[in-house]
Amino acid sequence: MAGTDQARGDVAALPAGAPAVILVEPQLGENIGMAARAMLNTGLTDLRMVQPRDGWPSEAAQKAASGADVVIGGARVFESTAAACADLQIVYATTARSRDMTKRVLDPRGAAAEFAQAARAGQRTGVLFGKESKGLTNDDVALAEAIVRAPLNPAFASLNLAQAVFLVGYEWRLVSLDAATGDGGSEDGAAGDLVMPKDTRLADHKELVGLYEHLEAELTACHFLYPPERAPVMARNLRNMFGRARLTEQEVRSLRGVVAALRRGPKSGLTPGPDGDGNNA
Amino acid sequence: MAGTDQARGDVAALPAGAPAVILVEPQLGENIGMAARAMLNTGLTDLRMVQPRDGWPSEAAQKAASGADVVIGGARVFESTAAACADLQIVYATTARSRDMTKRVLDPRGAAAEFAQAARAGQRTGVLFGKESKGLTNDDVALAEAIVRAPLNPAFASLNLAQAVFLVGYEWRLVSLDAATGDGGSEDGAAGDLVMPKDTRLADHKELVGLYEHLEAELTACHFLYPPERAPVMARNLRNMFGRARLTEQEVRSLRGVVAALRRGPKSGLTPGPDGDGNNA
Repeated sequence: MAGTDQARGDVAALPAGAPAVILVEPQLGENIGMAARAMLNTGLTDLRMVQPRDGWPSEAAQKAASGADVVIGGARVFESTAAACADLQIVYATTARSRDMTKRVLDPRGAAAEFAQAARAGQRTGVLFGKESKGLTNDDVALAEAIVRAPLNPAFASLNLAQAVFLVGYEWRLVSLDAATGDGGSEDGAAGDLVMPKDTRLADHKELVGLYEHLEAELTACHFLYPPERAPVMARNLRNMFGRARLTEQEVRSLRGVVAALRRGPKSGLTPGPDGDGNNA
Repeated sequence: MAGTDQARGDVAALPAGAPAVILVEPQLGENIGMAARAMLNTGLTDLRMVQPRDGWPSEAAQKAASGADVVIGGARVFESTAAACADLQIVYATTARSRDMTKRVLDPRGAAAEFAQAARAGQRTGVLFGKESKGLTNDDVALAEAIVRAPLNPAFASLNLAQAVFLVGYEWRLVSLDAATGDGGSEDGAAGDLVMPKDTRLADHKELVGLYEHLEAELTACHFLYPPERAPVMARNLRNMFGRARLTEQEVRSLRGVVAALRRGPKSGLTPGPDGDGNNA
């Protein structure tokens, strides 16, 4: 394990469908580099960052990656967590802290099993990791479908960033190796397969955030997100509710139709409006 | 996982019989400190070092341990690997490299299972970790009963020292939790337990159907559930969506408030109506 393996990443040989690693506002380039090394150790290559504090590219990250150049070189920087997750259908958030949210909590092994299951279904997945000093914001956590928490020493549960990334990657690798050797099937349905019509797919986060922002704009106009100081937590709780439902792209359109129809009211006549999309409800 | 847990190690509460961590000629104090942090994260506390290059105690190690003082403070330094292992009955060596030796090779999970078994038999165990640059010497490996090697990306298998220590500790912790809980410790959360604020509970079906019927009545009034022959399947799809979210009683009230607010529109003034229940959204 600790050793002097000089080989470098042969990405082609890695299991497909690995989750993306999304570092939200990482502070130290060295930690980004160690996370990149942990990713390649475990066969992850899709590194995304939201506003890295010290900018990008980073010499410190390059150095700490100890040769994981394929990960560092392919890393992408985004303006917001939502933008970094835009093309992903399943996003989980890592946190050691309890949050005042109603959300599924998985351990890394359980999360890896769901990622493998999602990959087999052609779905794109990702994991959010917060900044070293504070972890993820509640808004970031609210964007995720579930929380990943490791069963660590409860008296000392805060992991170094690279350790947290490594843990998720390690469990992913074990599950993907099981799948490659045929044992992975035993995990099927362990967390409950989401069965959906063939003509639809899970919504991606661009579509989900579009729904959230549409609903929140209307609820602000209706003075429901009130008083202002309470509005953010109220909006977060609504996002948590819809996030747990793991909506399909068709359902997102239907819900936007529901919101539009309720706002429009009866006076709009007998047929759904352009975004009513009633037949898909 | 990555987070801001400020709690410090409560050694008394940790599972007994954990393996000792033996760092052979570690080079950087920072790596020793990160290894100590990884140990306490996973419930290991017995840190032993063989001739640390930069001496001991180490300010860099203390700093990098991020509060794992109980491990750093209790660390012991030895003149030789043999001396460090003197009181241990079972010692395994971690290495990413193949050695020209005939030895059992276990993965960290298999090694953890054997450590747990040994602990139950009252045996003291330990794991050898080599120096960052070269890993273990063949003589050190020869001292060990077996080799521990993680199933990592074969093209990039060299782990950071702290990662290697973390991996062994993590698998030990899962096994010891399994033993403590009878079984399934490592499966906890595999299905994604739903956690929620203490002051709420899952909604019962009377409350859910109340929400569904409220929403469907409004959507019928708004001509969204249209045409009539499609209305039943459209309503069913909406119920499926909300059903998947496993709503709490509080969330049901909030969603009824959302529906009422959207129907009422801005003209209703600044405060949520009686069933608006905005503060619970």
